[in-house]
Amino acid sequence: MGHNIDLSNYKIRTDLAIEVINKKVKGIKTKEYIEDNVKITEVVIDKDAESIINKKKGNYITIEFADVTDYENSKKVEEIFSRELTKLINKLDIKNENSCLVVGLGNSKSTPDSLGPLVINNILVTNHLFELGEVTDGYRRVSVLIPGVMGQTGLETSETINSIVNKFKPDFLIAVDALASQSVERVNKTIQMTDTGIHPGSGIGNSRKEISYETLNIPCIAIGVPTVVDAITIVSDTINYMHKHYTYSKLNINSPINKLMVYSPNYLKEKITLNKKDKETLLGIVGTLDDDEIKQLLFEVLTPIGFNLMVTPKEVDFLVEKLSLIIGNGINKSLHNNIK
Amino acid sequence: MGHNIDLSNYKIRTDLAIEVINKKVKGIKTKEYIEDNVKITEVVIDKDAESIINKKKGNYITIEFADVTDYENSKKVEEIFSRELTKLINKLDIKNENSCLVVGLGNSKSTPDSLGPLVINNILVTNHLFELGEVTDGYRRVSVLIPGVMGQTGLETSETINSIVNKFKPDFLIAVDALASQSVERVNKTIQMTDTGIHPGSGIGNSRKEISYETLNIPCIAIGVPTVVDAITIVSDTINYMHKHYTYSKLNINSPINKLMVYSPNYLKEKITLNKKDKETLLGIVGTLDDDEIKQLLFEVLTPIGFNLMVTPKEVDFLVEKLSLIIGNGINKSLHNNIK
Amino acid sequence: MGHNIDLSNYKIRTDLAIEVINKKVKGIKTKEYIEDNVKITEVVIDKDAESIINKKKGNYITIEFADVTDYENSKKVEEIFSRELTKLINKLDIKNENSCLVVGLGNSKSTPDSLGPLVINNILVTNHLFELGEVTDGYRRVSVLIPGVMGQTGLETSETINSIVNKFKPDFLIAVDALASQSVERVNKTIQMTDTGIHPGSGIGNSRKEISYETLNIPCIAIGVPTVVDAITIVSDTINYMHKHYTYSKLNINSPINKLMVYSPNYLKEKITLNKKDKETLLGIVGTLDDDEIKQLLFEVLTPIGFNLMVTPKEVDFLVEKLSLIIGNGINKSLHNNIK
Amino acid sequence: MGHNIDLSNYKIRTDLAIEVINKKVKGIKTKEYIEDNVKITEVVIDKDAESIINKKKGNYITIEFADVTDYENSKKVEEIFSRELTKLINKLDIKNENSCLVVGLGNSKSTPDSLGPLVINNILVTNHLFELGEVTDGYRRVSVLIPGVMGQTGLETSETINSIVNKFKPDFLIAVDALASQSVERVNKTIQMTDTGIHPGSGIGNSRKEISYETLNIPCIAIGVPTVVDAITIVSDTINYMHKHYTYSKLNINSPINKLMVYSPNYLKEKITLNKKDKETLLGIVGTLDDDEIKQLLFEVLTPIGFNLMVTPKEVDFLVEKLSLIIGNGINKSLHNNIK
Repeated sequence: MGHNIDLSNYKIRTDLAIEVINKKVKGIKTKEYIEDNVKITEVVIDKDAESIINKKKGNYITIEFADVTDYENSKKVEEIFSRELTKLINKLDIKNENSCLVVGLGNSKSTPDSLGPLVINNILVTNHLFELGEVTDGYRRVSVLIPGVMGQTGLETSETINSIVNKFKPDFLIAVDALASQSVERVNKTIQMTDTGIHPGSGIGNSRKEISYETLNIPCIAIGVPTVVDAITIVSDTINYMHKHYTYSKLNINSPINKLMVYSPNYLKEKITLNKKDKETLLGIVGTLDDDEIKQLLFEVLTPIGFNLMVTPKEVDFLVEKLSLIIGNGINKSLHNNIK
Repeated sequence: MGHNIDLSNYKIRTDLAIEVINKKVKGIKTKEYIEDNVKITEVVIDKDAESIINKKKGNYITIEFADVTDYENSKKVEEIFSRELTKLINKLDIKNENSCLVVGLGNSKSTPDSLGPLVINNILVTNHLFELGEVTDGYRRVSVLIPGVMGQTGLETSETINSIVNKFKPDFLIAVDALASQSVERVNKTIQMTDTGIHPGSGIGNSRKEISYETLNIPCIAIGVPTVVDAITIVSDTINYMHKHYTYSKLNINSPINKLMVYSPNYLKEKITLNKKDKETLLGIVGTLDDDEIKQLLFEVLTPIGFNLMVTPKEVDFLVEKLSLIIGNGINKSLHNNIK
Repeated sequence: MGHNIDLSNYKIRTDLAIEVINKKVKGIKTKEYIEDNVKITEVVIDKDAESIINKKKGNYITIEFADVTDYENSKKVEEIFSRELTKLINKLDIKNENSCLVVGLGNSKSTPDSLGPLVINNILVTNHLFELGEVTDGYRRVSVLIPGVMGQTGLETSETINSIVNKFKPDFLIAVDALASQSVERVNKTIQMTDTGIHPGSGIGNSRKEISYETLNIPCIAIGVPTVVDAITIVSDTINYMHKHYTYSKLNINSPINKLMVYSPNYLKEKITLNKKDKETLLGIVGTLDDDEIKQLLFEVLTPIGFNLMVTPKEVDFLVEKLSLIIGNGINKSLHNNIK
Repeated sequence: MGHNIDLSNYKIRTDLAIEVINKKVKGIKTKEYIEDNVKITEVVIDKDAESIINKKKGNYITIEFADVTDYENSKKVEEIFSRELTKLINKLDIKNENSCLVVGLGNSKSTPDSLGPLVINNILVTNHLFELGEVTDGYRRVSVLIPGVMGQTGLETSETINSIVNKFKPDFLIAVDALASQSVERVNKTIQMTDTGIHPGSGIGNSRKEISYETLNIPCIAIGVPTVVDAITIVSDTINYMHKHYTYSKLNINSPINKLMVYSPNYLKEKITLNKKDKETLLGIVGTLDDDEIKQLLFEVLTPIGFNLMVTPKEVDFLVEKLSLIIGNGINKSLHNNIK
């Protein structure tokens, strides 16, 4: 038997643009830089590229960081996040007097899916105060919505949002959602924002329908954090790490310094050129497959036996709480000039 | 000084029909009975009466009970509540195939105002399952909404409901809300239901705008439980008890049986005829005032110094949880034939 | 009938020293001052006075304030609270190297009684880090305990604390508890601290046994906030306000300025000389009773009919959360030199 | 390079006896049966075996089931669990009049580690009622303790329990804890109980010290549910599944029925004889390793780069809640004859 893997079954499931743009596709502009150990990636996808990579044309900004349980680090991430969000708002030609509806998507009763509702708790709401004439300069009209998920409400979420937008007519919308990742490294360590809105298949708890300029007629900024991965991702990531570890070990196993090391090094930081032969030696047929083929194989192995779990790190409660604070505070600073 | 109390300032604040119908007004029909220690009062208010007592024409059913922390008692109340709700639904000519939106009004973050949102957690939601064809006979289409309060969302609650009703077109609506009471005895011990909907001034946390057939074009059943009273109510109730206690004591103080009693009796259960003279002897000028005048006086005394608190019994967490279970289960039984 | 009120039944129930020291008793030193609208009262009760006023000898510091929902104000209260706590710790000759056990008394599932457990969530715990040698200078060994209430655990709380103190041998103890007040004005607006510990009858949810130097052999600081009052207190306070209001009205009713005022003034701020005659005119027999007699009468009126409720303001959730933050932060600053 | 894997680094981490007894070791008796789709495994480990498999001598009962979100199924599991617990209590010669302390280990603020504290919320506590003489026949003295975790309290958990046991002198102890599993299949789908208590390395959130008859001098029953797995387990399980899937596919790929199947079959249910050759063809060097060697390799690959996450299924909130209800109700039935 060869390895005729059928690639059509496993729809690669990711909500992060940076996870699908590693191929050279025409119509994608990418800018990457590191600031204070935080990596910022700006991706612009144009009309030509959108069908190819199955991501809508628009701006995608991704912020990757190490650890938000540290106070200093969380403040740094909050600042960069808020600055990038402000830039995106300005790029969309949104003015200070434009009102905003912030929507917290997801299920407040499921920790890894509760990021959206938790962010809403940290948003400074002002819309009703404007009606009373109680607001000084430097604040924008802001209202919020926690629409729930269809399994709880019985109502399709995008239609709930649609009806609220039609009634209250905010000038633009920010939607916050927990996402799935295609990489273990990014879980709870990445914030993505985009002006393309929310699209089918996003979100971890439910299939979403589109929430975008096209459906609502107002600019829609989506902010997401991957909080879950599936088992396929964990295993396929690990297979890649095994290759790198094997090649690294082969190169270094006889170096005197290596023998002195008590703790193993972070071999991911080394430049390692993998070769086809090594991969096959290490992992047989599996070593001959490319990334998509491995994922497809794992899908075929895990799905029929019910073990393609979506999982989340056991510290999810603390991480989601911290992240909701960073995103809530960051949104407040971007929406209100008076908040610093 | 006499007691020229200006009755115009203190708007009597109650959401319970039974608290305003003790006067003989034309156009009010009342039926009262006791079943298993639970008191059921049915009030029908017609066109003639509505302007006089400031309660809208329609049906009001009130269920008064002693203690829902006892399991047996809570089951009894649940059964009576569900039966009365089913009668009201039938009276409105609502059919099994009609869909229902259950709305939980109030603030989930404030215990005495969280009854509505807590009830929603106990509602069996089926609307989305109908779309999937997954529902057997005996179940109705039910969806739910927790609109939040304006201070949290920035959005006027009745308009949020309005937009959802227009979008999803349920056939009828049930709104659940925590109320204020004009009587200490009724707090957490009364469920009221009415087909007249929710009206301005109802609810404990916020002024509500109308939610009714007139505003939504579908039948609107409102279910409420008083969970708070104001200090005025506590004091004016106590003044009444003082009168009764005084008269009772005068009559019984020399009876041999009274002297043998270790614990004081529940004098409220006795038939006591109060007289003007006794009241004045006991409480001077205050004793010459009628109930409304006393409340007006207390309003003038307590309001300028900021002490007309709205309060709730310290056991509110347990009571609201029990009540939300009773009401949630009761609604489920009334909405779905298959739930018993 | 006269008013032969039996004063023995209603044990005046207060946990605040300032509520029992308004009589001139030998052996009590009091110092009162106002700082930034916050009133600080220091009371020292000596051996002679303790039996008379039924409060144990020792230091009592009370901080009274207006509103902790305002951020600036809450920071001011936190600072004053922490400074006073530091002074008390120093007065007890506690050194930087002495370890502390912070105990959160009360029921985490009942909002008005959850102050203690909520404070614990805000305490910086270091004891286990000392074992690992991970602590820099400027931090003290701190551990915490949430013992629960006997109705939940089946265990007598003071014995639980006793066994933990015997095992882990902290050098001193701080216990935080929600209290009952004898005055509506003080509810959620007062913090009391004392080096006399916790005594029988304190606390709102349960009868406490003593937690003190005498029972544990280490200094015991108790910090309390009144979060509930009983109906008797609300009514007797109101009777006093009625009296003042009546006298104020008599004096001002014909003054031209009074007739122009749309809102009533805060008459409590005026110097008004009350007289016995006015009180009797206004309130008949009740007007002839002194404060203790009125409370006793109300006890006799309300208790047999089950209406002497313990109540809490309906905003209790927000207030207890804010107060737990103030007290938690304040304790951290007092315990650790490095926290500012 | 060969595959000289150093097996000493990765301490196999499991709290489930059934995960370490698949080798034929003298001194282990095992009985397995299936009842209503629930698998019950009784393991008795004697003195001879304990050092070999690193599990203490005593009784281990494991209950494996499919899905507790289904009401009928959860009731079935509850019944079997309670029956097995009752048998274990009887085996320990515990009488009806013996008092019990139920301890909920773990961190209430971390969902996958909150099983213990959540179970405690469902326990019927009676100890304090016995003091009041308020208990009828058929109930046992039961008290509870939620000791918290050392990272929160600063206190070593086993010493907290020790001091409470010494003070209150319960006749036996039941400790409930969330565990780590060595198998994806068992996560949230297994309940283990044992009379050997809790041992070092158990629990998911913290290293535990021993809690057992040896340390407390009273019988100690430990009840645990695995709620997390590490990435090593997910990958090594998947490697085994890949092997089985490959062998199954080779055998069936040309069968006509297989080509007609739209969905893949659950190949785990088939009897498949694996052979070394296939594994090597499929997985190269990795295919030559046995299970322990693969785990050791994965440990070396994942640990230095920080990706040996402990993870939990994203539905953990619902599952832990359901499981805590099953275990709480089950314990109540086993402890009190009057509860059915």
